[in-house]
Parts: sequence; structure tokens; C-alpha cells
Amino acid sequence: MKNEEQFLDLIDTHFTVSNEFVKLGRGDDCAVLASGKDYCISSDLFIEDVHFRRSYFSAADIGYKALAVNISDIAGMGGKPVAFSMDLMAPADLDDEFWNELFKSMSGIARQNDMALIGGDISRADKLGLSITIYGVGSSTGFLQRGKCQPGDVLFTIGDIGLARAGLMTLEAFGDKAREALPAAVMAHLRPKPKVMIGTLLNAAGVNSLMDLSDGLARDLPRLLGPNQGADLSLKSEQLNGNVIAFAMGVGTDPLEIAILGGEDYALIGAVSPDKLDKAESVPGFTQIGTVSETPGITLNGEPFTTQGFDHFDD
Amino acid sequence: MKNEEQFLDLIDTHFTVSNEFVKLGRGDDCAVLASGKDYCISSDLFIEDVHFRRSYFSAADIGYKALAVNISDIAGMGGKPVAFSMDLMAPADLDDEFWNELFKSMSGIARQNDMALIGGDISRADKLGLSITIYGVGSSTGFLQRGKCQPGDVLFTIGDIGLARAGLMTLEAFGDKAREALPAAVMAHLRPKPKVMIGTLLNAAGVNSLMDLSDGLARDLPRLLGPNQGADLSLKSEQLNGNVIAFAMGVGTDPLEIAILGGEDYALIGAVSPDKLDKAESVPGFTQIGTVSETPGITLNGEPFTTQGFDHFDD
Repeated sequence: MKNEEQFLDLIDTHFTVSNEFVKLGRGDDCAVLASGKDYCISSDLFIEDVHFRRSYFSAADIGYKALAVNISDIAGMGGKPVAFSMDLMAPADLDDEFWNELFKSMSGIARQNDMALIGGDISRADKLGLSITIYGVGSSTGFLQRGKCQPGDVLFTIGDIGLARAGLMTLEAFGDKAREALPAAVMAHLRPKPKVMIGTLLNAAGVNSLMDLSDGLARDLPRLLGPNQGADLSLKSEQLNGNVIAFAMGVGTDPLEIAILGGEDYALIGAVSPDKLDKAESVPGFTQIGTVSETPGITLNGEPFTTQGFDHFDD
Repeated sequence: MKNEEQFLDLIDTHFTVSNEFVKLGRGDDCAVLASGKDYCISSDLFIEDVHFRRSYFSAADIGYKALAVNISDIAGMGGKPVAFSMDLMAPADLDDEFWNELFKSMSGIARQNDMALIGGDISRADKLGLSITIYGVGSSTGFLQRGKCQPGDVLFTIGDIGLARAGLMTLEAFGDKAREALPAAVMAHLRPKPKVMIGTLLNAAGVNSLMDLSDGLARDLPRLLGPNQGADLSLKSEQLNGNVIAFAMGVGTDPLEIAILGGEDYALIGAVSPDKLDKAESVPGFTQIGTVSETPGITLNGEPFTTQGFDHFDD
């Protein structure tokens, strides 16, 4: 890619310009989203050597995950993604085939979700980076928020916790060989599956509160709880993915610690009142993990809960 | 700033969370913009050593310009900015005072425009960078687009052209000393003034087409024109800012070449039909620069027009 025009031409071959929510597509100073809907909006960075490594992320993995982590934020609101914009930081050493693979993979997950690419910017940079902003719509009942739990609510997760962390740590230690050792864990890190349909079903089931688990259970649970609320968690190793158990055995750690520290699970965590539990339980993958209490503090299997989750920012 | 929480606390002290367009502010998986309006959306990168240098941009200059260039895209649609989200790439070597100055300056221009900061992301990075996505609303007649010119339309600009380029080249050559030599040019580069009110007035005056001049007249004019249209331009050195003339004299170039190459002018360029010229002419700074012709090709003062504008991407 020698210049911006070549990038834009390649992008045009891959991505849908428009759908029913897009009144004016990319190509002008701005795109225009049509009125009549509340739009939920989220923005995430995906930067080389912070969020991914080119040594074990293929171009296709990068394109997929950069968009998937944004879609997960919409899923965490019980919404449906409809469009996104992309700011691309492009190092000079990547060839045309790399970009073609990256865009092809990204457009695959975009198309699965009927999303249009409505705009963005491209710039040279030393390291590969993507800043994606995503737009979603809610159901007739709106969006599911954090901090709307009630004491007595049942806490639940949907999706594997700790699995992506096991994948990341194995990839960091063994590079591409990790794929053979712990395939499920590696795929959980490289290709997280945003839970849009699950979020929509939970929204319809009338759960009180929902968010996506991106920084690990230990860090994200307090964000889900309302002010002055706590939680009593009950988690057993048997509930975890076998790759989390295998990894924990390998490094000599309690698998529950891996699960709780997590990071980049892109699972969902939420709270539902007991009278709506029946409906919520029918959502695929629904796993009870505890209850919301009316005093601050979190316990895990009866013990105080003190571990820390994942911060993309910590030095 | 040791971690993300400290950044968020500092951001909270500076930026408005909400306004009438924001249904749910920052802090959840997503923010929510209220329905009932078409939202125009634009996204721009602002990256160290590509779009700015820390050697002559103060923290306050960086914070100001990162948001100003995005606001200019809304002005180019004849819209009014209402909110923005910000992905921040933060090197470890910048102190708290730097960030405070950057956010203070950015929040100043945000507040002038009644904009809320609705979300974003923060990550460590080797170089300072900002990816801002901005949201605006239009007037009752909607937004002004590119490519809507008619043959016979009067072409116009509002704002200095070439001035920011003279500033950039002087800053690159002489660093901070450029401020004394060509103050207007330097300020045009460091602190471009987005023309929101002007864009709104042009929208109300019923001009046919409008865009902001960010890549220079030579590169942007063809984007304004419709398919198979051309333009005949008439530009005189006397119309240019004195600092453009002074710079051109200093480097032994035709000042018109500086003006046409431009880059980062953040002026507006548009086309108005002759029957609405009266109304458009009353907008402050309105400067006729030519007419739209019905055959491709651009002439400047009767000569073919061949120069190239500015590409942030070219190596």
C-alpha cells in the first residue's frame, strides 16, 4: 500500500458501505447514522505489543479480534452492532497480502453481524494499531447497563473465564507451539467470540444488569455491582474449561485464580432477579456464580476475595 | 499517570459527561446517543511525528488541535458538534502536568462547543497518539455534502489557505523561533479554528456543496466536484494572508503554489448556485475563487492546474 487511495480501494473491495441504519456512507467529511434509534457507542484500541503480538497473531487474527472486542461491548449492553468506523495506524513494512488478509478477516465478522464500515482515517505509524468505534442499537426495552443489580440477584456468567488468559500466557511462553498444547485456550485469546445473540436473549429475559468481561472477573465484578453492594461467589474448578485446568496444573497455580484474574474473556457477566431466573437460565451457557449482597465486599467460596484482574495500562 | 483509573479521574475533572444528546454517558460498556436526530460521525488520528511534533507543540496545543481537526469535519457538513469519544495512546515518559495541560486545553474547545466526552479507551504506546471520533447534528435541512455541485455554481473558500502550510514548514525549519517570524502562520498550524458557525450559516444560506479543506485545495477541490465536472479558478496573491506571501518570498516560491498545496487549512470550500450567491456572500469571510464547469479539468488563472496537495500517508 503506497498511499491512502490504495488503502481505500482495498477497503472498498471488502467492506459493506451501507445498511438501513446508514443514511450517508463513508467518503464525505462525515458519515450519517439515521435518526429514530438510540445508538450505543463504544471505542477500543488494539495496538501491537500492547494488545497483540505479530509474532503469533496472523493478519487474519488481528483483523478479526480488533473488531470482535468492540462487538463484545455492544453484546455487553444487550444490543446489536450495526456499523463501525476505523482509524488505522499502518507501519510501512507490511505488504499488500497482509492487509488483504486483515481486511478479509475483519469483513467476515462484520458481515456475520450485518455491519457497515462508515468511515475512519489512515496514518503511517511505527507500530500497527487500530482504533475502532462501534455503533449498535438496542431492543424495544433499551440497553442493559452496569450497576443495576439488586441485593439478592443471582450473578451469572456466560462463556469461559480464564481461558483466554491461559491462552495468552501460553502464547507468550511458547509462541506458535501453544496452539498444539492448549488449542481452546489459544483460540479464546486469538479469536474471542462476541456474544451478541446471548446478550439479546438476556435483554429479552429481563435481567437487571449486564457487561462484558474484558479485564477479568476480579476487576469487572465490582463494576457490575451497584454502590455499597457486595457479592458472594461460588465457583468450582470443575466449571472451568479443561484447558484452564491443564494450564494451571502446568504452572502450579489454583485454576480458580486463573479464572478470576482472567482478562480478555469477552464472556458476559450479569445479574438477574430470582423471579426472572427461570427465563434467564434457558439462555445457552448460563452459569450461576453467586448472589448480590447488600453490604460491600466480595467472598469466593466463603473466603475474602482479594486478587486483581488485568489492566492493559499497568507498566 | 500510573494506571487507567488515574487517567479517568483526571479526565473526569475536565470533561462534561452529558448534554441533551447523551442518554447514557461514559463509564459503561457503551455510551448511548439519544434518538430523534441524524448523527454525523467522523474520526481522525492525531499522532506524534506524523501529525504533530512534541518539540514545538505544547501539551495544550496537542489537546486543542486533536479535537479541533475533528470539529472541522462537522463544520464541513454544516453541522454542529455535540459529543466525542477519545482513544488515547499514552507514552510512559509524560508527566501528570503534561496530561493536565492537554486535557484542560481540549476541554476548553469542547466546552466552547457544548460537547460531551462520552467514552473511549486508554493504552500505553511508544508515541503519543489520539484517535477521536466526533458526533454532530444537522440543521432542519440536514447536512451539506461533497459532490453536489452544479455546473455554473460559484466556488468559494472561507478561511486562509496555505497559511498553515507556511506555518508547518517554518516550524519544521526553525522550531519555536518560527513563532516570532510568522506568528499567524504558526498559529494557523498549531491552533486551527474550526468554522462551525460559518458552516451553519452556509447551510442556512442553501449552498449546494461544502467540505473542510484538510489536504489542500489541489487535493480537496476534485473531491468537492461532482463526477465529470471541472473548475475554473481565479486566485490572486493579494487574496492570501501576508504570512503566506512572506513565507513564499523567503523560500523563493510563488505564493499561489503554497496556497494551492495547502494542507491542514481547516478552511471551508464549497459551491453555491448563482441565485443564492447574495445570501452566501453575506457569510463572514466568503471569498469567491471560481466556478464549476461541466467538463473535467481544473484551470487556475487560465492555466492548467497540476499541483498535488498533502497526503499524511505518503512516505
